[in-house]
Amino acid sequence: MTGRPDPESAPQSPAGVQRRHDPAVRGFASDNYAGVHPEVLAALAAANGGHQVAYGEDVYTEHLQEVFRGLFGPAAEAYPAFNGTGANNVALQALTERWGSVVCPATAHINTDECGAPERISGLKLLPVPTPDGKLTPELIDREAFGFDDEHRAQPQVVSITQTTELGTCYTPEEVKAVCDHAHDLGMAVHMDGARIANAAATLGVEPSRFTTEAGVDVLTFGGTKNGLLMGECVVVLDPSRVRGIPYLRKQSMQLASKMRFVSVQFEALLADGLWLRSATRANAMAKRLESAVRAVDGVTVTRPVQSNAVFATLPGEVIERLQKRFRFYTWDEAAHEVRWMCAFDTTEGDVDAFATAIAEEMHNYS
Amino acid sequence: MTGRPDPESAPQSPAGVQRRHDPAVRGFASDNYAGVHPEVLAALAAANGGHQVAYGEDVYTEHLQEVFRGLFGPAAEAYPAFNGTGANNVALQALTERWGSVVCPATAHINTDECGAPERISGLKLLPVPTPDGKLTPELIDREAFGFDDEHRAQPQVVSITQTTELGTCYTPEEVKAVCDHAHDLGMAVHMDGARIANAAATLGVEPSRFTTEAGVDVLTFGGTKNGLLMGECVVVLDPSRVRGIPYLRKQSMQLASKMRFVSVQFEALLADGLWLRSATRANAMAKRLESAVRAVDGVTVTRPVQSNAVFATLPGEVIERLQKRFRFYTWDEAAHEVRWMCAFDTTEGDVDAFATAIAEEMHNYS
Amino acid sequence: MTGRPDPESAPQSPAGVQRRHDPAVRGFASDNYAGVHPEVLAALAAANGGHQVAYGEDVYTEHLQEVFRGLFGPAAEAYPAFNGTGANNVALQALTERWGSVVCPATAHINTDECGAPERISGLKLLPVPTPDGKLTPELIDREAFGFDDEHRAQPQVVSITQTTELGTCYTPEEVKAVCDHAHDLGMAVHMDGARIANAAATLGVEPSRFTTEAGVDVLTFGGTKNGLLMGECVVVLDPSRVRGIPYLRKQSMQLASKMRFVSVQFEALLADGLWLRSATRANAMAKRLESAVRAVDGVTVTRPVQSNAVFATLPGEVIERLQKRFRFYTWDEAAHEVRWMCAFDTTEGDVDAFATAIAEEMHNYS
Amino acid sequence: MTGRPDPESAPQSPAGVQRRHDPAVRGFASDNYAGVHPEVLAALAAANGGHQVAYGEDVYTEHLQEVFRGLFGPAAEAYPAFNGTGANNVALQALTERWGSVVCPATAHINTDECGAPERISGLKLLPVPTPDGKLTPELIDREAFGFDDEHRAQPQVVSITQTTELGTCYTPEEVKAVCDHAHDLGMAVHMDGARIANAAATLGVEPSRFTTEAGVDVLTFGGTKNGLLMGECVVVLDPSRVRGIPYLRKQSMQLASKMRFVSVQFEALLADGLWLRSATRANAMAKRLESAVRAVDGVTVTRPVQSNAVFATLPGEVIERLQKRFRFYTWDEAAHEVRWMCAFDTTEGDVDAFATAIAEEMHNYS
Repeated sequence: MTGRPDPESAPQSPAGVQRRHDPAVRGFASDNYAGVHPEVLAALAAANGGHQVAYGEDVYTEHLQEVFRGLFGPAAEAYPAFNGTGANNVALQALTERWGSVVCPATAHINTDECGAPERISGLKLLPVPTPDGKLTPELIDREAFGFDDEHRAQPQVVSITQTTELGTCYTPEEVKAVCDHAHDLGMAVHMDGARIANAAATLGVEPSRFTTEAGVDVLTFGGTKNGLLMGECVVVLDPSRVRGIPYLRKQSMQLASKMRFVSVQFEALLADGLWLRSATRANAMAKRLESAVRAVDGVTVTRPVQSNAVFATLPGEVIERLQKRFRFYTWDEAAHEVRWMCAFDTTEGDVDAFATAIAEEMHNYS
Repeated sequence: MTGRPDPESAPQSPAGVQRRHDPAVRGFASDNYAGVHPEVLAALAAANGGHQVAYGEDVYTEHLQEVFRGLFGPAAEAYPAFNGTGANNVALQALTERWGSVVCPATAHINTDECGAPERISGLKLLPVPTPDGKLTPELIDREAFGFDDEHRAQPQVVSITQTTELGTCYTPEEVKAVCDHAHDLGMAVHMDGARIANAAATLGVEPSRFTTEAGVDVLTFGGTKNGLLMGECVVVLDPSRVRGIPYLRKQSMQLASKMRFVSVQFEALLADGLWLRSATRANAMAKRLESAVRAVDGVTVTRPVQSNAVFATLPGEVIERLQKRFRFYTWDEAAHEVRWMCAFDTTEGDVDAFATAIAEEMHNYS
Repeated sequence: MTGRPDPESAPQSPAGVQRRHDPAVRGFASDNYAGVHPEVLAALAAANGGHQVAYGEDVYTEHLQEVFRGLFGPAAEAYPAFNGTGANNVALQALTERWGSVVCPATAHINTDECGAPERISGLKLLPVPTPDGKLTPELIDREAFGFDDEHRAQPQVVSITQTTELGTCYTPEEVKAVCDHAHDLGMAVHMDGARIANAAATLGVEPSRFTTEAGVDVLTFGGTKNGLLMGECVVVLDPSRVRGIPYLRKQSMQLASKMRFVSVQFEALLADGLWLRSATRANAMAKRLESAVRAVDGVTVTRPVQSNAVFATLPGEVIERLQKRFRFYTWDEAAHEVRWMCAFDTTEGDVDAFATAIAEEMHNYS
Repeated sequence: MTGRPDPESAPQSPAGVQRRHDPAVRGFASDNYAGVHPEVLAALAAANGGHQVAYGEDVYTEHLQEVFRGLFGPAAEAYPAFNGTGANNVALQALTERWGSVVCPATAHINTDECGAPERISGLKLLPVPTPDGKLTPELIDREAFGFDDEHRAQPQVVSITQTTELGTCYTPEEVKAVCDHAHDLGMAVHMDGARIANAAATLGVEPSRFTTEAGVDVLTFGGTKNGLLMGECVVVLDPSRVRGIPYLRKQSMQLASKMRFVSVQFEALLADGLWLRSATRANAMAKRLESAVRAVDGVTVTRPVQSNAVFATLPGEVIERLQKRFRFYTWDEAAHEVRWMCAFDTTEGDVDAFATAIAEEMHNYS
């Protein structure tokens, strides 16, 4: 995928920088591999020109507050950040004392993909809990939420859940509420890593406040990058009484954009007119289409409920290897021959069909 | 400046997001207040479309290595990051042990403007040295570079200098070399915070390697944001034998962009065809123009050599207040009535002249 | 146990400070509840008087190096510290980079009892592995020792094992060697938390170097406090090529005793003439005696192999409660009604017999 | 001083551990070079024997609360710790948020002698202020206590002063009050590093609460080690409303002694019957005696007010070298030929006279 572009499909940019890739090539590796939605790119141009106060005192960031209040209620406060690891760590620090710990699923991004940032940068102990489907429940929380008032134990102060999960599953509003009620009963706060919150909203078909603010989530990482932004995640505080010091923590954690207008306006483009849901709905639909197609292929087993833009499946190792020469995607579990196929806002029906055909071909060759 | 735009000068964006500001308004507060250079914006479009491997394995980031090697020599390694605080802290961690300390000017950004990130995030003690002009010398370094092998003292392992400095001054290549030679003699490494390195290159009129690689700098923070990028700074390693673990440190320090192609291509647009120098040259010239204009105004004293895009001056407090109602800029030293006026890549001669006229008017009204 | 002493058994100290406790009362809660061995107390007096260089340049600390080299081989280096959490964290930092992680059993003290110090103070991610008996094996290590060279994963750099374990079990020299060989094959180092290493040496009946230096352990936390010291643990480096910066890390981690002679001389008293083994042998024997006695009591089940000074057992919750009114000990697993009974260097046969009798009585009353 | 003892003056210990030093040798290097006061050693024996609950739930630690309340008022809470660096860092963390900074004199132990622990372990930025005499004033505090509510600046939250200072000077109660009033007006808390608080109490001749609790100090590090303890410092909270989480912070910061009774009973021995003041009075008197003696020697200049147990003086470099072959002491400022002579609780008139005679001799030889 990183090779030189086909001359026909990759015209030169007028601005002098050469296009070095083929914009017609898409894979199933990650929603991070996709680019920027054209409406988002256009918004950058709209916000450009002239001077605006740096570090968030611009009109776009000011307006973004309204946008997020519209989605999550009048108490919501939005703090744009650079990336998901950054937003998650700002959120976790804002919710904890220095001696805090965080109960999370073992599969959580904060546990598996942040190079120890929660521990070394936020200074927090993670208390990961194995789960069958990437989702915590009150019972699972209780496996690690103990030892309150014991000075020998880093104090459990936050439950962190991911919506949709790293396994492609989706909490119902009732499930989120059960987690939040239980956490609050224990004196703990709730963080939701919403790197793919749009996919959840699309799947559930309810107002996003239903499975966040109203369910009791205290702080949300609202994801943008995986849904068509150039870059940008947003710490959205739903219960301001639970947090302290976010402006300082964001700066100290190196997540404060100087030209913040360009982060904020991307979120505006995403949120103001429903683009976030349109994009997520499409990505989810493409995952469903892929699921349907591969369920018809002997030897391929879909291993997890398809409730967002991910399809997990097992197939023979040899077939995986051959397929990966044709389409980029990741093996999730080497030992189990389980792969993860992600759809993005820009995945087309044609992409899915071509991929499904390839899978069928390679399985056929294998048998 | 954050008010609603004039309807004529702020046409609607075609993409649906409303322009909320007046792109004709510019001030002298900060080069961070400026927007994105049009060539950089165009480069984003060129890099868009299709899928590219995330986290830096894309063709644009690959190509960027060549670009930086062209500027800084064949050993140079470039690690794009989100912002200056992030890039500085990744660089400092890569150069130090856990028990390290960093000698820097008291005015250094790492000391004054990073909310303690070097201390809390990087875990390093800063050893700030007062300077007359924001520049370190071997003699000034020696004021804090002592106590080697004493377990009670955080070990001085890095000298950090800023080029151009936070006071608008510029090290000559010889001055940088003297700092580096001395640091190396002490067993210390040298970090250069080049948030405004373009302004230095424009001022000095020499190849950038002259006052970096050849002078002995080990790691450079190459600034982009203040010179027309949407966002982006780059850790450029000049002596790879001095650093360890940058990929891990960048991820852990929350500076790893998933869609890195869009950071890298901005740098390509900035660097490949000399845009960085053209922009800096203009900003520097506008500062010189402003300096000339205000030197002619009685009661205004330019307080520091104008060697980049900043003009520092003292004028009566009452005049400062009146001027700040008309143009945005910052007071640098409240007690001394010293202000800082920054020019940017988009500052025009008209902007400077209008501002200088306003200064003269307000001084006249005051007298 | 914290009540006022019986006047007869608690004579006044001649020194003016009143004895406030009954020195005849002992329980089975923890080897930390015991006091100081009389030979250790006498050693403090021997080292007292006159001036000695602070921070470890005294003759006792100098001599201690020989003592530890005698036990662990000519490369051994000893760094006395205050407590086990401190020694463990100095050791782990010395073995890792900032982006390191540590594979350990889920039951490890570093994971369960240090209030998050490894994470917040050492900045390390722990990768805890559930085990049946508190012991790691190559297979168990592999559950978390993966993701090498992946910048998204804190890099596994250390395997930490506890000898004897928190569950009272003891690694054989061969088992330690298998762990070390596997860790080294993976490029990882091995830390042994030897808070109860004396109990292991007593159980195994071999030279301590057999299951440490010769087996491949790189750094050892040599425990003193649980075996009759007033306070004191020692970081013992067995392979100096694996560590960096211990003097700085010890000071920075607040483990550098100014009057170190008094820590070192305690270790000398413990080690020079075999007191450590005599004390551990006795504590182990008392645990065996207790095990034998309770195995004869219906309704009490010993749940884990008794290979050191701990006995784990299940018995009815009601009986536990009644017993805890008579003797101090801890419940290990509330849900399972599992308790932990610890013997110390000062536990007597009479103590064990009285306790076993009480257990039998309460079980009899219960039935 | 670390050589083998003279056989006559160093009888064998009865306990088996050999005395390896000459208890008749004392120097002027540091009060940390002295040993344990005999009454403190006796107290260890009194607290020994039997079992006591670990980690501070013992009768001695319980009683210690009363002792400290007697000294510092009914709100005082005492948390014994291992050493000064540890106690200072627990105190500073308890008083700050993650984004806090600490104004202190440039000469403060936290700034110069803790290997960066405040920065790396506590995560705090220090804001050191040069002072003429080691003492802060409201004016000096203002040099760094600014930038409140600016997210780019680590927020000044604590003023830390040392009593008596590292330069041997002593704040009057009024001076402490002025510092505290000013800090409180700024919304900052006050920490007092009282490593040598006994020397201050002896110098001032007033109740210790006069220059602590009543003057407005919020948290005190009460020093024991430099005044005759084996080891032990105590975090004493004077205003509990200012702190959070000390039990957790103490454990996490590796300062929680398991056999805490032996730390607490040392403080009881020191405090209960005035030993702390007797010892400090003697050390102060010896410093005064030394000052008087050397003031009479031509070529020796006492450079700072002698207000505690330290004498600072300048004398020729050659004389310093010769003297250091006869008596152990430190050069304070190499360039200025300034030395520091410390007296301890065990310094005798004979020690002082012999040293003063040696100084006079060497100066005479030099002239």
